[in-house]
Amino acid sequence: MALIVQKYGGTSVGNIERIKNVARRVANTFNENNRVVVVLSAMSGETNKLVGYANEVSEFPVSREYDMIISTGEQVTIGLLALALNEMGYRAKSFLGHQVPIVTDSQFGSARIESIGGEKIMRELKDGVIAVVAGFQGVDSDGNITTLGRGGSDTTAVALAAALKADLCEIYTDVEGVYTTDPNICQDARKLKKISYDEMLEMASLGAKVLQTRSVEFAKKYEVPVMVRSSFNDAPGTLVCKEDAEMEKVVVSGVTYNKDEAKISVLRVPDRPGIAAKLFRPLTEAGINVDMIVQNISHDAHTDLTFTVSKSEFKRALKLVKETAGEIEAKDVVGDPNIAKVSIVGAGMRSHAGIASKMFEVMSKEGINIQMISTSEIKISCVVDVKYTELAVRVLHEAFGLAGEVAEETE
Amino acid sequence: MALIVQKYGGTSVGNIERIKNVARRVANTFNENNRVVVVLSAMSGETNKLVGYANEVSEFPVSREYDMIISTGEQVTIGLLALALNEMGYRAKSFLGHQVPIVTDSQFGSARIESIGGEKIMRELKDGVIAVVAGFQGVDSDGNITTLGRGGSDTTAVALAAALKADLCEIYTDVEGVYTTDPNICQDARKLKKISYDEMLEMASLGAKVLQTRSVEFAKKYEVPVMVRSSFNDAPGTLVCKEDAEMEKVVVSGVTYNKDEAKISVLRVPDRPGIAAKLFRPLTEAGINVDMIVQNISHDAHTDLTFTVSKSEFKRALKLVKETAGEIEAKDVVGDPNIAKVSIVGAGMRSHAGIASKMFEVMSKEGINIQMISTSEIKISCVVDVKYTELAVRVLHEAFGLAGEVAEETE
Repeated sequence: MALIVQKYGGTSVGNIERIKNVARRVANTFNENNRVVVVLSAMSGETNKLVGYANEVSEFPVSREYDMIISTGEQVTIGLLALALNEMGYRAKSFLGHQVPIVTDSQFGSARIESIGGEKIMRELKDGVIAVVAGFQGVDSDGNITTLGRGGSDTTAVALAAALKADLCEIYTDVEGVYTTDPNICQDARKLKKISYDEMLEMASLGAKVLQTRSVEFAKKYEVPVMVRSSFNDAPGTLVCKEDAEMEKVVVSGVTYNKDEAKISVLRVPDRPGIAAKLFRPLTEAGINVDMIVQNISHDAHTDLTFTVSKSEFKRALKLVKETAGEIEAKDVVGDPNIAKVSIVGAGMRSHAGIASKMFEVMSKEGINIQMISTSEIKISCVVDVKYTELAVRVLHEAFGLAGEVAEETE
Repeated sequence: MALIVQKYGGTSVGNIERIKNVARRVANTFNENNRVVVVLSAMSGETNKLVGYANEVSEFPVSREYDMIISTGEQVTIGLLALALNEMGYRAKSFLGHQVPIVTDSQFGSARIESIGGEKIMRELKDGVIAVVAGFQGVDSDGNITTLGRGGSDTTAVALAAALKADLCEIYTDVEGVYTTDPNICQDARKLKKISYDEMLEMASLGAKVLQTRSVEFAKKYEVPVMVRSSFNDAPGTLVCKEDAEMEKVVVSGVTYNKDEAKISVLRVPDRPGIAAKLFRPLTEAGINVDMIVQNISHDAHTDLTFTVSKSEFKRALKLVKETAGEIEAKDVVGDPNIAKVSIVGAGMRSHAGIASKMFEVMSKEGINIQMISTSEIKISCVVDVKYTELAVRVLHEAFGLAGEVAEETE
């Protein structure tokens, strides 16, 4: 008898008909002799409505009260799913974060899970009950309601799967799995059968919006096998799991892109120790996240320093950097929001040489100028002019042989 | 420094603008050197929406899950009010039933409060915080969310006031207080300055829909002074409190009516012990509440038995009684849904004779036939043809001198 945690997102429980559909899926899994824990998001649109209310009352809402308000959406869906299952003749009970309990720190709005008490749920499961748990929410040690940040229900599901030592965590969403790239850009994008935690982390943080990054970190840490699949059909999904020998053979697993960043260059900075620290301190203090940073070797004791920030923080960041530029005697500061980051990701890169140069060649052949480069063990990212995004993704997808080659994947 | 519990109903928090209005009222009370606890209902319409969802999923929803769903409306409003108060520069925190805690039995849907832990709230109040508590909800000893039934927020407020030994419990609603009768029927109906718990209980259960009956029982038991007033203006309300010498002087405080009942007569029943028990047992087993019961002296060892039930249960009750009628050898069963119950209520009745006969005379003078009579220490109810309802209310209101006599009441 296996224990399976299933998570359904907002579109999967977007109305009563869909909730009934989820109930049928859950029942099928239960009937196949499994113990089942279900984690749900709020109905799609519901959390946005609640956020709207909060913002109407307060431009900068107190985070404790904000969490109190926006955690109600999940409470409605878990109650409704438990009702639907009971209506079908199954025994089902809903549980809130504090009832499990899912204990978090007190960082309202982006709380981190500290511990999960699995005993109560386990007792219910052994008793033949289907447990339906509210995603996204927890409780801190003082009994305050907390939320885990957008997409936090994925993390709830994976963390529960870890705590309950589940055999599998299924994440049901509105796509069929993880693709080699965005199917909206490449029609021949292929669904992956398997992907390693590390690859998924790179894919997730690079813009493939399938799984919340923190949920993948959790899955990796506790080695929870995670299956990403669609709640609207029975197509096999993508398994996110530990890296195996088979995966290492695949040099590049996917091509991703991100148009949400902007670039800031600080030109001809005197190359002295402490300059970078001075430049970035104001950004850190303003809570602005810096992504890629590139600094070249210096000429005449001067260097150029370029970095990217989220587009939504671009203007604020540019203003702060310009203020600091005088202090550090930089010659000029130039900003450019019209960029995109295109990346290739693959566990096989570790053992294969020449991947980077192949990437650069492919792009150069199309006349795509590379503005910045950043690499990790299993990914290479290039910043290019935003107008080349789709072209770059397509040629890289083609060049690394990702196009629909595995027939069985399209079944 | 006084401690005041304020409760605002669904229409008072019906939208963001109204919630901000409530925040201003709460702030004013706080500024007058009071400690303030606020109890809120859900936005008007919200609970009905949630009930609609539940009924779409299940015709007879499992009560535990039903409570899980419909208790979310209050969670939204308390968070929003706490936000609004913080936005205005006050320290305010919201609390759910289980966070207070408000411990109830496990009768989901109509749970009864068993105990309230006031320590946490008291600590916050002493710390200068305004506490905003979700009405209508509690938690049972197993940690399940429960609800107190429609109008339960009144009970939450009064029970909290009792637990915190508050100086006053203010119930803000969409009417200005308790009136001598329905102002829609009598234009000269007068707002009462004061009314005793017992009178209020008779008024509430007889159809004056101002306060939930159970909240008044609670207030009486713990002697919590309750002020009913409007959240839309500053008019003085009605104080519900212990009976005092002044009240006893007033013979009749109010005239009420109820059109929601129907009458069933069982004709010519053999007058034997156990007949009534046999007749009412099936109704009790079907969960049908019987209100007035009248049995006259017998003629020829036969008697007539008449009683009233809620109009919504009339058909079901009539069918059950007809089934039993044969068993007990009754001659006939007659039902009549076109009735109304008109009552006069007053603490002074205890010490004044002749009130009943005056009531009957007044009605007789208008040609109103009285079909049933029932009395208690402080009220007299008559069942009449529904078409006489308004006429009966008006003549009684006039005859007992209730019309706008106290000038200061209309300020």
